[in-house]
Parts: sequence; structure tokens; C-alpha cells
Amino acid sequence: MNNRCVFCDIIAGREPKSVVFEDQQCLVILDIFPMSPGHCLIIPKQHHVRVHQVPKAIRARLFEIGVQVRCAITASALGCDDANFIINDGQYANQEVPHVHLHVIPWRKRDHARLLRSMLRKALLGRVRKVDYATLDEQAAAIRSALQQF
Amino acid sequence: MNNRCVFCDIIAGREPKSVVFEDQQCLVILDIFPMSPGHCLIIPKQHHVRVHQVPKAIRARLFEIGVQVRCAITASALGCDDANFIINDGQYANQEVPHVHLHVIPWRKRDHARLLRSMLRKALLGRVRKVDYATLDEQAAAIRSALQQF
Repeated sequence: MNNRCVFCDIIAGREPKSVVFEDQQCLVILDIFPMSPGHCLIIPKQHHVRVHQVPKAIRARLFEIGVQVRCAITASALGCDDANFIINDGQYANQEVPHVHLHVIPWRKRDHARLLRSMLRKALLGRVRKVDYATLDEQAAAIRSALQQF
Repeated sequence: MNNRCVFCDIIAGREPKSVVFEDQQCLVILDIFPMSPGHCLIIPKQHHVRVHQVPKAIRARLFEIGVQVRCAITASALGCDDANFIINDGQYANQEVPHVHLHVIPWRKRDHARLLRSMLRKALLGRVRKVDYATLDEQAAAIRSALQQF
């Protein structure tokens, strides 16, 4: 645990979160700045900044949960056709929180128009769309329920 | 094996490649359209379009080799500070070859200016920079040699 890390705060319950899955090693939450509806973060509970610092077994588990979450999003009411699995490892790779995390970003055909609008909004108005916890909690419940199949 | 798949052709030796690593299950080659120097593709030899179709053990191996390759790039003459690990799963997620592959994209501070130039070149001239095999072979040899430590 690292006292200055927002993910460690979320894991420890000092910050709010919309939980999709949790076990002793990993936590899956919804991103509050989603690229698309259902954008999940798979986070190892141990604080490590870099991927190669995470123990091998937890690293494998992280990726495996990511694949299950992706299948669960497809099977859930949210649905999705496709997805990106992304780990940004370091500042020049666009890592925003210095605590390892795997992004699972679901995509449907319609999401691209939505993303374009959201990027224009950011460029023109300087505002990023933050999603409220009530909406995220609903999405998390839908994915959590579908996750039992995988 | 799929006869219409460019990665199956590369694996079978019907197309050229710059090899970083190879075992019975996976092949690591350099991308001929790299986002940055040393951009590697970790490819399972079995033909599967989607990540969830790949057997679990091979999936874990794929990611593990990716982490080793990332460490090897840092330790090699190419060097790198940071990296992205990316799997694009499906057309709306920007998957360009329908055969599962993990991108390992190394980044150094200077790469961002290079990438910007390359994106402008693509936008203005419609040309993507393809790197020749002699250059890729040199980079592959450097990473291959460093990979023995990991």
C-alpha cells in the first residue's frame, strides 16, 4: 500500500468505487473517465508502479481476469462487439496512475461517434466527461452478474 | 493455420520476418509499421482471431513473453523508458490482422516528436513509414541478445 496512491486509496476504501469483481489479489472497477460505457480497470491490490515488478502469478491472473471481464461485458446488458486490452507502463506510455492497471475498453460500432463527440468536447471546452457513480454502479452490477458464467 | 492469414504465412515461413524470439507456441517479430523503434508483436502460433479463443496457458505465456521482451528492449542497445502492452480484439478495437497478437510498443522521450512527424506525414502525404528488413533484423538481434537475461 502506498499512501499517496489513488488506487491504493480506492482499494483500502478511502475513495468511492464501482466494483465489478474483487478477490484477494485483484480489484476490478469501472473507470470514472471511460473511453466507452463499461470501461474497466483490472488492478492488482499490491502497490507496484511497473508491470515487471508485479509477481508473475498475479500478472497472469490480472490478464486472465481481464479476458473474463471482456466476455462478461459482451454477455451483459451493456454488450460489446470488440475490446482493447491496454497496459500503459510509464509516463511516456501515457500511464496516468502510477499503480499497475489493465484497461479493458469495450467497443460497439456506435461508440466511435460518441468518442469523437467526447474528444471534440475536450478539445473545444477543455472538459472531460466524468460519469457519476449511480450510472457506474448500474453498469458494474450488470457486468458482475454476467461474470458468473466465466 | 489459416491460408488467408498473413501471420500464419509469416509463421510458416512464406513471408519474411525479423525474429526476436520463437518457441513451440509463440513467435515474436518486429512490426514493419512500427509506432516506435523496437515495436514488437507477440503472436501465438495457433490461428485464433479472438483473445478468448486462445487456450488459457498460451494466453498467459503470450503476456509473460511480452513482459520479458519489454525488459529486453530496455536492456538492449535500443533502450526504452516506458512501453504500451496492447491487444486490439476485433475491428472496432482497431485489430488490423485477424490473428491474435500482443503489441509491445517501447517509448523514449524523443519518440513522441518522431511519432508526431510520422502522423503528419501520413495525414499530409498519405504515406505510412515501413521500415526495411535490414534495419528490423539489426533491432531484432539487439533485443534477442538482451532477452537471454530474462
